[in-house]
Amino acid sequence: MASVAPFITLTTDFGTRDHFVGSMKGVILSISPRATIVDIAHDLPPHDVEAAAFQIGCAYRDFPRRSIHVVVVDPGVGGPRRPILAVTDWGLFLAPDNGVLTRVYGESGPAESVRVIHLTTAHYFKVSPGQTFHGRDIFAPVAAWLTRGVEPMKFGDMMQDPVRLDLPEPTVEKKRLIGRVAYIDRFGNLITNVTAVHLQALAACRPVRWQVRVKQAVIEGLSEYYAERPGGEPQAVINSSGHLEIACYQASAQTRLAAFRGDAVTVTLAA
Amino acid sequence: MASVAPFITLTTDFGTRDHFVGSMKGVILSISPRATIVDIAHDLPPHDVEAAAFQIGCAYRDFPRRSIHVVVVDPGVGGPRRPILAVTDWGLFLAPDNGVLTRVYGESGPAESVRVIHLTTAHYFKVSPGQTFHGRDIFAPVAAWLTRGVEPMKFGDMMQDPVRLDLPEPTVEKKRLIGRVAYIDRFGNLITNVTAVHLQALAACRPVRWQVRVKQAVIEGLSEYYAERPGGEPQAVINSSGHLEIACYQASAQTRLAAFRGDAVTVTLAA
Amino acid sequence: MASVAPFITLTTDFGTRDHFVGSMKGVILSISPRATIVDIAHDLPPHDVEAAAFQIGCAYRDFPRRSIHVVVVDPGVGGPRRPILAVTDWGLFLAPDNGVLTRVYGESGPAESVRVIHLTTAHYFKVSPGQTFHGRDIFAPVAAWLTRGVEPMKFGDMMQDPVRLDLPEPTVEKKRLIGRVAYIDRFGNLITNVTAVHLQALAACRPVRWQVRVKQAVIEGLSEYYAERPGGEPQAVINSSGHLEIACYQASAQTRLAAFRGDAVTVTLAA
Repeated sequence: MASVAPFITLTTDFGTRDHFVGSMKGVILSISPRATIVDIAHDLPPHDVEAAAFQIGCAYRDFPRRSIHVVVVDPGVGGPRRPILAVTDWGLFLAPDNGVLTRVYGESGPAESVRVIHLTTAHYFKVSPGQTFHGRDIFAPVAAWLTRGVEPMKFGDMMQDPVRLDLPEPTVEKKRLIGRVAYIDRFGNLITNVTAVHLQALAACRPVRWQVRVKQAVIEGLSEYYAERPGGEPQAVINSSGHLEIACYQASAQTRLAAFRGDAVTVTLAA
Repeated sequence: MASVAPFITLTTDFGTRDHFVGSMKGVILSISPRATIVDIAHDLPPHDVEAAAFQIGCAYRDFPRRSIHVVVVDPGVGGPRRPILAVTDWGLFLAPDNGVLTRVYGESGPAESVRVIHLTTAHYFKVSPGQTFHGRDIFAPVAAWLTRGVEPMKFGDMMQDPVRLDLPEPTVEKKRLIGRVAYIDRFGNLITNVTAVHLQALAACRPVRWQVRVKQAVIEGLSEYYAERPGGEPQAVINSSGHLEIACYQASAQTRLAAFRGDAVTVTLAA
Repeated sequence: MASVAPFITLTTDFGTRDHFVGSMKGVILSISPRATIVDIAHDLPPHDVEAAAFQIGCAYRDFPRRSIHVVVVDPGVGGPRRPILAVTDWGLFLAPDNGVLTRVYGESGPAESVRVIHLTTAHYFKVSPGQTFHGRDIFAPVAAWLTRGVEPMKFGDMMQDPVRLDLPEPTVEKKRLIGRVAYIDRFGNLITNVTAVHLQALAACRPVRWQVRVKQAVIEGLSEYYAERPGGEPQAVINSSGHLEIACYQASAQTRLAAFRGDAVTVTLAA
């Protein structure tokens, strides 16, 4: 790192109409004035741990290695849920232990190379009159001290059993994948839990034609880009995070299909 | 300061769909390329001076001392209201003189240690075709020049009578406090003007049990954290800014109680 | 530039509830760790190229010269529309070639001093599984490499015919200008395509009195500032970007007048 400022990213449901995110930044800069702080997203749906898990999962690989990612969607703040630090090959993650780091741990639980530490050394925390804002009082100061060179193990003890969300994988049948809508973005695009890797495995390197079914829509073939079907009918693309996505050109697939997170998506091998 | 970049925070009602905040940052960086600019909140309700006063009041102590805080909720822009700079022990505050700095001055008016300067030296301002955007044309350049070392007194003359909002304190009776909802945050939590200090004074160091009444809710005892009452019924906590707060676990107390800013909150000493 | 970090601004319709903007910043910082990244606006209406063109047009002159401005409202992403770099006297602009830079090119098409380059050298781009996010995969890395000193011509070949929006100029009659509402901001102010320059030309240096008509409103005279008509009736001001603007004090002119972008605005020389 040397002369380069270290990076701290923030992903929260704190919005941009209250002082919460600003206060976190103030605490970080008070400890580590040269830190570079980057907002990932703050208008996540309140209390929606699964949405936050999806967003940080899409974003962290785009940052320099050894970045520090603070993820605070934390309805259990102040109660028995533990504040944690997960150290992976990609970066350092500070969050409540409520499953929000599930996609960081990998598909099959924390890998060998992931260490999870229960944050307990309160002398690094900010003294506070209440227990409602660990984003400011625990996660922000620990992030800042990490950029100052304090070793992760100084903040608490290793733990073995972090909470994981039950994020279902697609069911694979002979010529069919049954997945689900895993996230709906600001444009109303339906991001599924089916990935390019799933499709490649099913196609087994043959040239194939896909059919995608979601709600009442039956989509023949994949599009390369949104404007390929300019009429606004539902289409399927492999998006920039490698997920199968249902989208309508310049319109919301969510609205057109009356879709919700969790809706089934069936992909059939047609040829 | 030496090799550390100085900090300029921005708190506005300019939102994030127009260029306003970006233009302020451009002007700052044109004058002071090394300034570190931090957003506190931009989606404050339009023209809501009281909300802005509350937010900056909650945030400024979380920043390094001598930070520069720009607060622009400014319906009177361009008219007779004065642009001001308030210098306190905590930091420097740039704002319209409409009461938005009331909580910075302290509960009993500007303290001895607060100096307020009427910004008049127009050669530091940006030349502009109109008088509708002092955020960009006055407050941003003055903030930037402050980080360059220009002395506060260079920007105008001292003044004695800054505008203050009439923010009522809770009424204290023998065994009872009558306060009000002072702010409602993005989660729908009701932040009251009753603080931990008020409660301590009433309890007089005895162990006590509190009862809190707001709208139709009668809340027995204080919670330590939101998840303590997982059913979502209204509860009262001391929050991270030291205020008594009415909250519902993973739900909006504002919606559940049909509450508004200004609603009465009664705290009774039950034991 | 020397020891000062270069500036990259971001103007998008990506919102603040998904990871899109964060991912762009991560890619930039991975290549250019010292870059200073500045948000101009991210809550632009989805797919609204004209709104984005207006916003960047209002903002870019407020930034230091040679700043890099990334503008991504890009419904045609991944299809035949070209990714471009426009180099002007004011700065460098990265965007899809869909007209979003129209106001940067100037009123009469790209000027002599504007060079437009079609971005084709894919070895500077980020490898991606999909073609839905050129903000992250093309524009962010090219912006970062520009700050590292890579010459603009290294990214592709000059092109002559960038797409331009058809943005009508006001019609000038003898004693009358007929313009339109060009943009409506977050406060509901109606920004017109009539500028102070148009009015000066019509008045020909004489003292005059203006009458402005929009929807059912007939406004006599210009205001200097919003609070000049505290009753909230529609008034006209020259705003901080030099445009004639219809506004209501502490209220939305859009709502009061049921106005939309494109509505006619007539300015008459009354004296």
